[in-house]
Amino acid sequence: MDKHYCICIGRKFCSGGRNVAAMVAEKLGIKVYDRDLLKKAAQNTGFSEKFFDEADEEKTRKGLRSLFMNHLGTNGLSNNYLSNESIFNMQSEAIRKIHETEDCVFIGRCADYVLRDSDRLLNVFIAADVDDRVARVIRHAGESMTQSKALSLIEDIDRKRSSYYNYFTGRTWGDTAVYDICLNSTTLGYDKCADIIVSLAKEKLGI
Amino acid sequence: MDKHYCICIGRKFCSGGRNVAAMVAEKLGIKVYDRDLLKKAAQNTGFSEKFFDEADEEKTRKGLRSLFMNHLGTNGLSNNYLSNESIFNMQSEAIRKIHETEDCVFIGRCADYVLRDSDRLLNVFIAADVDDRVARVIRHAGESMTQSKALSLIEDIDRKRSSYYNYFTGRTWGDTAVYDICLNSTTLGYDKCADIIVSLAKEKLGI
Repeated sequence: MDKHYCICIGRKFCSGGRNVAAMVAEKLGIKVYDRDLLKKAAQNTGFSEKFFDEADEEKTRKGLRSLFMNHLGTNGLSNNYLSNESIFNMQSEAIRKIHETEDCVFIGRCADYVLRDSDRLLNVFIAADVDDRVARVIRHAGESMTQSKALSLIEDIDRKRSSYYNYFTGRTWGDTAVYDICLNSTTLGYDKCADIIVSLAKEKLGI
Repeated sequence: MDKHYCICIGRKFCSGGRNVAAMVAEKLGIKVYDRDLLKKAAQNTGFSEKFFDEADEEKTRKGLRSLFMNHLGTNGLSNNYLSNESIFNMQSEAIRKIHETEDCVFIGRCADYVLRDSDRLLNVFIAADVDDRVARVIRHAGESMTQSKALSLIEDIDRKRSSYYNYFTGRTWGDTAVYDICLNSTTLGYDKCADIIVSLAKEKLGI
């Protein structure tokens, strides 16, 4: 059995997945990795934080390639080394190292796929009603955000997350069979979602 | 608050949804409605059981229309009365009557949509890994069933369930945001799925 456990949380955009992840981590006394993970990967590989922030999961394959080309410019590294697969591999390496070192929650980043051979993995997806998500976008963005703009943003970011995940994993983002459990944060509430995850984690991961 | 509660269970074909539903019902001491529901609807409307069995949820719109035409032949009822919407409405009426009368589990039949205004509804979806479902089909069908035939059958029945559900509800069958909770019976096991549903039902439905 792996020394450390991890809870991987995928989420529709603005479904409250980040809030639920924070609650789960607090209840279990463990850390959440999301953008921090990218920074850690950057530190380990010598790439800048900015580079990893830009090469985020919401970029498509084409976008990633172009990003690499632009960022690296004339520094002499070969195209092969600079492929989008390379950055995914570096990020994956960071995920594996963290999993070897500590119990934690990963948000997104295909961590469920990267750690698919772990025997102490709980794989969760958080969804929410679209009206709730639109309201959440507007609440965060302020009055300049209209309902239709918010809906477009949601569809756009979900599509990008889906493309990224499906491309790198060969799985289908948000498909119920990919996860152990999928929860609706609108009908259940963040607290209840976190409680269900913690309770299941304790049973399934031998915490 | 509604007098009675109901747990609606949607499921991918051969994902063990029926087994989980039976376990949930047994733990709560309530009844499961699936084909029985159609029979009850048949009794209430005067149509034969055979008719309702044929007009099952796995028929597409076109299939349903043709079925109605063939079944009713020359008995003089108008096309309007015989639409696929009519049988859906009769079935829905039966679902509503049952919900007014007793606590129960509904399997499929768009019951979650029919009872969408109920304040004592838990909406669940059961998925499973495809390899597990293929093995299950073969186990049930015997040696004449090959892996590729089983996979085709699974895809075909899932597609029909999806068409039926999406057509009548305007929702997306199997989409995580449609349900309160989606569970993977392969990774969690039937028992654990049933336990999670019962525990959540007790909290959410005030049982």
